[in-house]
Amino acid sequence: MKIIIDAFGGDNAPEEIIAGGIAAINEEKGFTAVFAGKEDVIKEHLKNYEYDSSRVEILPAEEVITCEEEPTSAFRKKPGSSIALGLKALKEDEDTAAFVSAGSTGAVLVGATLKLGRISGVNRPALCPVLPTATEKNVLLLDSGANADCKSINLYQFAVMGSAFAEAMGVKNPVVALLSNGTEDEKGNALTHEVFPMLKEAAGINFAGNCEARDILSGKYDVVVTDGFSGNVALKGIEGTVGLLFSALKGEIYSSFRGKMGGLLLKPAFKNLKTKLDYNNRGGALFLGVNKIVIKAHGSSKRTAIKSAVLQAVSYAKEDLIGRVKAKLSENAREAK
Amino acid sequence: MKIIIDAFGGDNAPEEIIAGGIAAINEEKGFTAVFAGKEDVIKEHLKNYEYDSSRVEILPAEEVITCEEEPTSAFRKKPGSSIALGLKALKEDEDTAAFVSAGSTGAVLVGATLKLGRISGVNRPALCPVLPTATEKNVLLLDSGANADCKSINLYQFAVMGSAFAEAMGVKNPVVALLSNGTEDEKGNALTHEVFPMLKEAAGINFAGNCEARDILSGKYDVVVTDGFSGNVALKGIEGTVGLLFSALKGEIYSSFRGKMGGLLLKPAFKNLKTKLDYNNRGGALFLGVNKIVIKAHGSSKRTAIKSAVLQAVSYAKEDLIGRVKAKLSENAREAK
Repeated sequence: MKIIIDAFGGDNAPEEIIAGGIAAINEEKGFTAVFAGKEDVIKEHLKNYEYDSSRVEILPAEEVITCEEEPTSAFRKKPGSSIALGLKALKEDEDTAAFVSAGSTGAVLVGATLKLGRISGVNRPALCPVLPTATEKNVLLLDSGANADCKSINLYQFAVMGSAFAEAMGVKNPVVALLSNGTEDEKGNALTHEVFPMLKEAAGINFAGNCEARDILSGKYDVVVTDGFSGNVALKGIEGTVGLLFSALKGEIYSSFRGKMGGLLLKPAFKNLKTKLDYNNRGGALFLGVNKIVIKAHGSSKRTAIKSAVLQAVSYAKEDLIGRVKAKLSENAREAK
Repeated sequence: MKIIIDAFGGDNAPEEIIAGGIAAINEEKGFTAVFAGKEDVIKEHLKNYEYDSSRVEILPAEEVITCEEEPTSAFRKKPGSSIALGLKALKEDEDTAAFVSAGSTGAVLVGATLKLGRISGVNRPALCPVLPTATEKNVLLLDSGANADCKSINLYQFAVMGSAFAEAMGVKNPVVALLSNGTEDEKGNALTHEVFPMLKEAAGINFAGNCEARDILSGKYDVVVTDGFSGNVALKGIEGTVGLLFSALKGEIYSSFRGKMGGLLLKPAFKNLKTKLDYNNRGGALFLGVNKIVIKAHGSSKRTAIKSAVLQAVSYAKEDLIGRVKAKLSENAREAK
């Protein structure tokens, strides 16, 4: 099995990307890492690491799509980019299981949709990160940003795909909630009011009703569905608050001698917590709904995040994630309302 | 000047509400606290406190609206409730400046709109909490939940009202941002795409463009406008993350002796931080757009939160908040797009 890694996507490309890919190779067997990007540069970087060279390949791609470019036109104008060639190889080669990129989100999503095509029964693929919760469980939040405007059928399909994804990760009968502005059944906006009965009626969805944003990370739910605008607001609100709290805490700690002593003693505790909450360490967000596995890592990903994203891709491939999503969709097919 | 306090609204009513109202009286001069609710019960509670009795009144109201009741019908069916009679007195008495309640949000909003009426030029009033940020500044987030579905003209008016509110709080030329799924101008959903140029063109609004949810609390903005669904998601996402982080940190601290020692030393730091971030301590959310000052405190408010909410109401009244909002709206009037 091959995993294609976009060596030229992200703020820390290519160094951290290549380091992360090699770390993945060295940590787990059973796959080949294919680095897409400028061949010379990749070769030069690879010299810095020790690894089984039979498990590393290069997919030459001389063009680079930056985050400043308009995604759709950039993707079309640069057929020789690491994103375009990476996705092309993913589509064409049966043995290639996934594409991992920390590059332009827009270009990866547009490219994946165009090159790989949507799974039958999916109108809009969704970006789906795996978030840590207050318990040992994870929660899937989709759509977290691919589709700013959604229809009820999109959210319905997100619930089906999210359930299949959670099942592939070992969750039995995953609990699905609809993000809303209150927990009561009648809360919501026009969109959620339309989706609510669709989710309630669906035999294949274990629907728990509305959930508030404060409960996304509570561990009560395995899957939270919403439109890409609200999902993005929720995700970034959580992310921003974590960052703010850690920096405010740092400020408090450094403001007194007593604080500094306490901070020193709590260093391991803070580190544990940061590791647990930092979703960068958890790899990337799956682009769920296209015909193969595409993982979008955070633009600021360093080697650990890239390693996690690659290992995530490997495990999804082993669990036949796409096959499971297809099966669940066909079992729960329904028309738009 | 009189401030009406709903003594029978909220999880901790009437005890904490009355205690909070009395604390406000004892802390600041220049106003009278009017407790709305069951006269006997309020009288009984008042015996527990020392205060200037010339500054406390009771507005007898025998009915109570609970949070379980459907707001609109509860408000109509219970004309003798503390919410209905409190808002009636607020409307009718010129010397009464504000109504403060920790009761049913829906009933307070519906009641305020019906009894007090909307300010001319406001299609939809908005719920507007004052949030702490990473800096010394505060930020206003509106609408944080009154209107799940909004049109562009609503968000435009939120920006105008929010600017006037920030100005009344002493902010010069307040910076207004539009909550979106990215900072670039072209990011957003159908609604924000329509609002964006309206805000850009408005002479009276210092518009800074789109902002992501992660930056709401950054201190970069004085006012963040959004629809009530996304605003609620943002607010509760922030709230939930703060709660989760503190409880996770507690878990880490108690998991080792070293942690316990560190936690002991950091107790004052944690307390400071909690005080700073806990928006309950900051009083309540202003219901902005009706003809008088209405403050909705959190349902779980204890005496400190109620005291803050009452003092908040007093300061808004002193700053002639409603007059300023009216003036700003008439200067920046525009038609729906």
